[in-house]
Amino acid sequence: MIESQITRPTLLLDKAKCQSNIDTMLAKAKRTNTILRPHFKTHQSAEIGKWFKDKGVTAIAVSSLKMAEYFAANGWMDITVAIPVNVREIDSINKLASKIELNLVVESRESILFLESELKDTVGIFIKVDSGYQRCGIPVEATESIRFLVGLIKDSEKMQCKGFLAHTGQNYNAKDQNEIHKNHSKALLNLNELKDVFRKEIPNLVVSLGDTPACSISEEFYGIDEIRPGNFVFYDVMQYVLGSCEEYQIAIAMACPVIARNIDRNELVIYGGAVHFSKEYLEADEQGTKLFGSIVRITDNGWSEILGGAYLASVSQEHGIIRCSSDIFSSFQIGDLIGILPIHSCLTANLMRSYLSTDGNWVEMMPK
Amino acid sequence: MIESQITRPTLLLDKAKCQSNIDTMLAKAKRTNTILRPHFKTHQSAEIGKWFKDKGVTAIAVSSLKMAEYFAANGWMDITVAIPVNVREIDSINKLASKIELNLVVESRESILFLESELKDTVGIFIKVDSGYQRCGIPVEATESIRFLVGLIKDSEKMQCKGFLAHTGQNYNAKDQNEIHKNHSKALLNLNELKDVFRKEIPNLVVSLGDTPACSISEEFYGIDEIRPGNFVFYDVMQYVLGSCEEYQIAIAMACPVIARNIDRNELVIYGGAVHFSKEYLEADEQGTKLFGSIVRITDNGWSEILGGAYLASVSQEHGIIRCSSDIFSSFQIGDLIGILPIHSCLTANLMRSYLSTDGNWVEMMPK
Repeated sequence: MIESQITRPTLLLDKAKCQSNIDTMLAKAKRTNTILRPHFKTHQSAEIGKWFKDKGVTAIAVSSLKMAEYFAANGWMDITVAIPVNVREIDSINKLASKIELNLVVESRESILFLESELKDTVGIFIKVDSGYQRCGIPVEATESIRFLVGLIKDSEKMQCKGFLAHTGQNYNAKDQNEIHKNHSKALLNLNELKDVFRKEIPNLVVSLGDTPACSISEEFYGIDEIRPGNFVFYDVMQYVLGSCEEYQIAIAMACPVIARNIDRNELVIYGGAVHFSKEYLEADEQGTKLFGSIVRITDNGWSEILGGAYLASVSQEHGIIRCSSDIFSSFQIGDLIGILPIHSCLTANLMRSYLSTDGNWVEMMPK
Repeated sequence: MIESQITRPTLLLDKAKCQSNIDTMLAKAKRTNTILRPHFKTHQSAEIGKWFKDKGVTAIAVSSLKMAEYFAANGWMDITVAIPVNVREIDSINKLASKIELNLVVESRESILFLESELKDTVGIFIKVDSGYQRCGIPVEATESIRFLVGLIKDSEKMQCKGFLAHTGQNYNAKDQNEIHKNHSKALLNLNELKDVFRKEIPNLVVSLGDTPACSISEEFYGIDEIRPGNFVFYDVMQYVLGSCEEYQIAIAMACPVIARNIDRNELVIYGGAVHFSKEYLEADEQGTKLFGSIVRITDNGWSEILGGAYLASVSQEHGIIRCSSDIFSSFQIGDLIGILPIHSCLTANLMRSYLSTDGNWVEMMPK
């Protein structure tokens, strides 16, 4: 009976679903002969990290040096900071590199020269390559630019050239599974060509690829050495709509108190807004109707399937508005809890900073 | 030289601009014969609260009971929790009501009956009325529904009927100042009619109205007893675009390190994303180009005017992409700091949870 523990917006975590998601991805890695280096930016929790460790995972990715420090302090000894290196944090880098196997990501001559001059210990280096997302990285076809960076790294005594890191982020904007498969196949082709070019120059070359959609739906990872998905640990409505997961795999749900009801508009007002969910949304139809979350009923030990005829239609700082059918409207009274599956679990978890496990225990995250 | 203190995304606060914004709103309250009850959900900081107190402010609004507890612990003795009461937090309500003058907001018979049964001390009660925003509240014209709630509250020994609380939130979606003036005039008219109806029934009736756009641009508050703006303490790009403030009044800016540069696309990649700014955006043109922040240069003691020809074009969890002219592109190198004025300062401050004052001191916020 978790309901009695909840007085305000609370992020529920279904440990069984979460563990099953981890198992499924580990099985995928095994089947496809890749190493799973899970991205811990989604859960940011030492305890959830331990669930991975207990299943044999030893290497992780994070999105900030602060997160690397937190997980290093919790016993993780092989960490990739999977964002172009922030040279202003060289002191943290040197501290971490003296304790753990730290991998950094570079994509420019300037960053490499800076590291060469300032590093005190050895770090592993991945060159960020762009497989079509156009956020950052050297275009995967620009072999000469990549060779120039490889040369600089190989000349260094403190940097060990590990290989290439890519993120097919365009998969998050895909229309359907077909588009994800197409993007993924193209990335595989390009990365294999790149690998062929540099196989001799970089001993034990690692190609690291990571995005939850492709890692969830594809069985084809030829030439990829490690996969780096993060979101799969919880999934969310966005991944469900993309086809990356089934509804029952979504492992977190927000429980929110109903604070007002408008019978004229069939709207429930919840205590739960942008400071809990973020303002991430999906467009639910061609008219651009915004969907900020899907609605479930909170049960004794978790939550129900998604309720048809109800959705989180808007969020302000602390309020949310749920539009629903009159049947659903009538079934929720002031003070009741209502459940919302988040659109984007990474941003929701980042805002909430703790979980209430459906077995009744609190699971803590990295302090802000 | 604040630059040397900054290694990662850092929210800068210009104390002089912030204090001037407070002075301007206090002068407006004095001129319009209203009490300023500032909404502290924007800054969530005891130290910034003290700047208000030093200028004579004694009553505040907040958006959660947790925030009320924090400010009560920091010496605030008159607090309105300006969101329909969350009955699940009755224990916090009773603890607070035993220590301070606590005002709650109701809009339903159920909430009133619950409070009547569970309250241990006297609280002030505002009835939430809807002046057209259609988020929550009883429609301001629904006099009979309002009379019913007033009667229930007056019959209670623990609830003191204070009056009516409204929020013209539709002003945040206004196209221009003209629309804000129209919304505000309509709200004034409706609230004055309401006040006339209940003047005799509710002794010392207070009408409380709060939104930064109208409180910033209007001089007309006839019949309004207190104003409750919050955002004005910092303002932001959204308020600047609405016409609520001048650019020089925006009192916070994010300083972010440049971590990558793409010369082919004239794009700077910053360490600074959705976990720093939120995903709030404005549509910059009729094609729907999204604007996640405006760009400034960080200076020795603050920041420059907005740079034309540059904008924060997208954010992922930790990265942001700035599109800019080639001149601006050339002037920023890897490791440089670049400044971004946030679209929505409330959500940005909520994510960052501390400020670096441009005089070099850290200003703390309520712990998450």
